[in-house]
Amino acid sequence: MAPIAPRSGDAVFANVERVNAELFTLTYGAVVRQLLTDLEEVEEVNKQLDQMGYNIGIRLIDEFLAKSNVSRCVDFKETAEVIAKVGFKMFLGVSASVTNWDADGTCCSLILEDNPLVDFVELPDTCQGLYYCNVLSGVIRGALEMVSMKTEVTWVRDMLRGDDAYELKVKLLKQVPEEYPYKDDE
Amino acid sequence: MAPIAPRSGDAVFANVERVNAELFTLTYGAVVRQLLTDLEEVEEVNKQLDQMGYNIGIRLIDEFLAKSNVSRCVDFKETAEVIAKVGFKMFLGVSASVTNWDADGTCCSLILEDNPLVDFVELPDTCQGLYYCNVLSGVIRGALEMVSMKTEVTWVRDMLRGDDAYELKVKLLKQVPEEYPYKDDE
Repeated sequence: MAPIAPRSGDAVFANVERVNAELFTLTYGAVVRQLLTDLEEVEEVNKQLDQMGYNIGIRLIDEFLAKSNVSRCVDFKETAEVIAKVGFKMFLGVSASVTNWDADGTCCSLILEDNPLVDFVELPDTCQGLYYCNVLSGVIRGALEMVSMKTEVTWVRDMLRGDDAYELKVKLLKQVPEEYPYKDDE
Repeated sequence: MAPIAPRSGDAVFANVERVNAELFTLTYGAVVRQLLTDLEEVEEVNKQLDQMGYNIGIRLIDEFLAKSNVSRCVDFKETAEVIAKVGFKMFLGVSASVTNWDADGTCCSLILEDNPLVDFVELPDTCQGLYYCNVLSGVIRGALEMVSMKTEVTWVRDMLRGDDAYELKVKLLKQVPEEYPYKDDE
């Protein structure tokens, strides 16, 4: 049987159930506001958003694998491309670009020019230090952990802080080899 | 110029920007979990979800009016139908039915058979008393308040509590007449 070809992010996005982007954006905004009220410290809010994202990511990976027909990536470079071109498109309807690779191919940047999380958002002066979109870094970290990749995901640029794009640095810390119930030579 | 015809919920939904429904569902789930952890009391979580919904509703009404081409409803009965058939469809991709009208046309039920908020959700025994979807009642209350209708929105049935549908009772408390800057007889 011929292998099933991976589907482009556009094709997958066209076929999944969707909700109105503005409802999602406003809901996310309400969450951030709630956390700012409850936790007071911006640093704590950053942590909670990341943790929420992690919890989302470890479940979202199932939907991703089920709907995208993406099979095992040969290396971290391919993984990053798949996140940028299929993952972002499939869930948020936008795609990212991958740049700034280090020499050994374990660290790169994902750059988002369009970001539906931040429509209508302006940060007041009291929120300096907030990584408003920190849920995204958590989602990537959580999803990759479920496919045996320990990563560190941090913001390099953030348009809400005055930068010219959203740039997430994704660093592969450790790739846990998957264990099979039998050995190849058995 | 001929008046612009209101657009069906399907037509509007097909043309708005959207995100993956599972991402929305998991994000909402992460919010509820966060509130349960932070607030401990289920009753407080219900209140916060309603308040979050209210804050979303008072902004979502703008998108609704801008995209739906719905003009002024003649009465509360028409308003309820528009929420059920256009509003729910436009934001969540599902529609509701309207029943149980009282004699004077100021109280009815919106019944949802399909509800994207609750996919994959099961409530543990410790969450008895939680109205998981309470954000919805807040959204309706907030949105209607912005078009001069004070309402009370409460859950009658909830499938997560073992009922056979989701039923929201919407009661019109007060309709504030809009004030015009001039009088008709001037």
